[in-house]
Amino acid sequence: MTIPLTSLNVPDQAPGIKMANEIGEQPRVLAGLLDSDRRQFVALADIIKKASPRFVLLAARGTSDHAALYAKYLIEISLGLPVGLASPSTLTAYGANPQLEGVLWLAVSQSGGSPDLVESTAAARRLGALTVAATNSPQSPLAGAAEHHLDIRAGSETAVAATKSYTAQLLALWLLVDAWRGGTSNGAAGLPEWAASVLADDTVLEVAGGYRFADRIITTGRGYSYPTAREGALKLMETSYLPAQAFSGADLLHGPFAMIDSQHPVIAVVPEGIGGTAMRPILERLEDRGAHVCVVGDPSAAPPGSLVLPLPAGVPEELSPILQILPLQRLALQLSVERGNDPDAPRGLLKVTETW
Amino acid sequence: MTIPLTSLNVPDQAPGIKMANEIGEQPRVLAGLLDSDRRQFVALADIIKKASPRFVLLAARGTSDHAALYAKYLIEISLGLPVGLASPSTLTAYGANPQLEGVLWLAVSQSGGSPDLVESTAAARRLGALTVAATNSPQSPLAGAAEHHLDIRAGSETAVAATKSYTAQLLALWLLVDAWRGGTSNGAAGLPEWAASVLADDTVLEVAGGYRFADRIITTGRGYSYPTAREGALKLMETSYLPAQAFSGADLLHGPFAMIDSQHPVIAVVPEGIGGTAMRPILERLEDRGAHVCVVGDPSAAPPGSLVLPLPAGVPEELSPILQILPLQRLALQLSVERGNDPDAPRGLLKVTETW
Repeated sequence: MTIPLTSLNVPDQAPGIKMANEIGEQPRVLAGLLDSDRRQFVALADIIKKASPRFVLLAARGTSDHAALYAKYLIEISLGLPVGLASPSTLTAYGANPQLEGVLWLAVSQSGGSPDLVESTAAARRLGALTVAATNSPQSPLAGAAEHHLDIRAGSETAVAATKSYTAQLLALWLLVDAWRGGTSNGAAGLPEWAASVLADDTVLEVAGGYRFADRIITTGRGYSYPTAREGALKLMETSYLPAQAFSGADLLHGPFAMIDSQHPVIAVVPEGIGGTAMRPILERLEDRGAHVCVVGDPSAAPPGSLVLPLPAGVPEELSPILQILPLQRLALQLSVERGNDPDAPRGLLKVTETW
Repeated sequence: MTIPLTSLNVPDQAPGIKMANEIGEQPRVLAGLLDSDRRQFVALADIIKKASPRFVLLAARGTSDHAALYAKYLIEISLGLPVGLASPSTLTAYGANPQLEGVLWLAVSQSGGSPDLVESTAAARRLGALTVAATNSPQSPLAGAAEHHLDIRAGSETAVAATKSYTAQLLALWLLVDAWRGGTSNGAAGLPEWAASVLADDTVLEVAGGYRFADRIITTGRGYSYPTAREGALKLMETSYLPAQAFSGADLLHGPFAMIDSQHPVIAVVPEGIGGTAMRPILERLEDRGAHVCVVGDPSAAPPGSLVLPLPAGVPEELSPILQILPLQRLALQLSVERGNDPDAPRGLLKVTETW
């Protein structure tokens, strides 16, 4: 499969060129993962199946935490296994010693470098868990601390805001789970072309223009699309310094809904499928409150007068998060540049965040 | 133990009087729970111990979700059991059928009325979990759906923003876990008086004055205090419509830290103990960025020039969340009133939120 690099027409030397290039590489990164030796996924899935875990713990921070949240929905829904997001500090700072025999511990990290993940993964391994690290760096400390490594093959990522490593994490985790449930991975074959078509749609530039003076943004989604809401909000925070707040559609109604008014935009991630249907009552409530809504996904779900960032029709819901994030990455990039910031050099951040 | 009602000196008929009264009732509610028949906790703990769960799933929304998060830390750290926060939609909207034999499913809800919690708890019970509902309403549908009920005994709560039901949830969950680990519950005996002394400190009114024109607030904490950061942010959102964003200290550094500047306040929850020590590097980073910080908890942790909402010295860290939230509830109440809102009638919200 030959997938060209997508160019977002950002000039060299311009602020955000690194992020723009890495956003544009995503169709090729996805194609590369799909073309890569499936044995990586099948062999690891066989090891996991043989261990027959009773329960899965996911450990991650930042963007990778949203990939982990995606894996939580995927494993719970398609494999029927209960999944928890680990609180690394219980194993590190608090020194808890849980029994982890029969538990799959899956750590997700672009760099594989954060000390708290390395330490908690080493602790989980010592406590009996089957440990797997999904990283972009087979030589990283985290890859070394885990018994097994899943290579997300995103290629070198230099922009501080993670983009291609996120979609590569999502697809690598999907390929692993698909092998685990005995799938053929064929359902994902269309992703590179779908991704290229989404990136070729410049509607997002108009949305960015409309949001330029916004002082806060709420994002929301349910099920598989909730991680997209979280990751979209994080991109906006780290590049545009906008207080972007992500809520699951259900949690939004439990309190934060009081913040909804007509002066602040809401981005609703609404795929075709169950998660999209579950968002309909929330879209109605938003419309009742006069909220300014932008729907990412299914245009037929958009309330009258709302903006739409459409995604291709017919994408299986469990794969749609790999596409949903693309226009939100571009929105963060564009807003950051328009507001006079450099998304490649967010204040106060380094590429590898070390936390303990 | 005779604990008087704490009066916050809010006049009758004034906006927020319901919330003010319920905040003031908390020392008495805590005393009532401590004085109540311990057999409720011991008997339920015996049932749980006999079932010997391999894993705990917590299910909750909104404020109760923060009580569930507190229980996650408590169970993981003091009982060494892995814990996950359930995503109810996987069992309801997506119809997943996980194997839940040997799993303790603990649903937490003030009203016990939200259909998604009732439905997911019924599903968990059908799928083999030991189900417990912690609610303020033994007659509620959720109490009926679960095999066992834990009565949080907060008394009727009528303000939309949950206050006394939150601290009652925390203490009821602590009493259950303490019985489960064979404790005597004596460590909590000082709570009513500590709570009364915290509520008697009006420093928070000055903090509210200083925040009156803030257009966003970040809250942060680690470990046991992270739920406080989450719940404090929710109170600010639902009563003052302020975009308040809560991050674990570690996650704050992974991206959201770019939002930190000297124009927007940061509330850091810093107890004595491990979670407080783990916050020190984050406080240093905040100081380096020139952030305006308010420390809730240990005055000795406060960077020069920061505000302090002090809590009593010598409180065990695992009990400190029951006190930490008190000044933040008052902050939300006061800010809401000063900004011309009625915290008893947040726009767009009802007391019982029904989500599916």
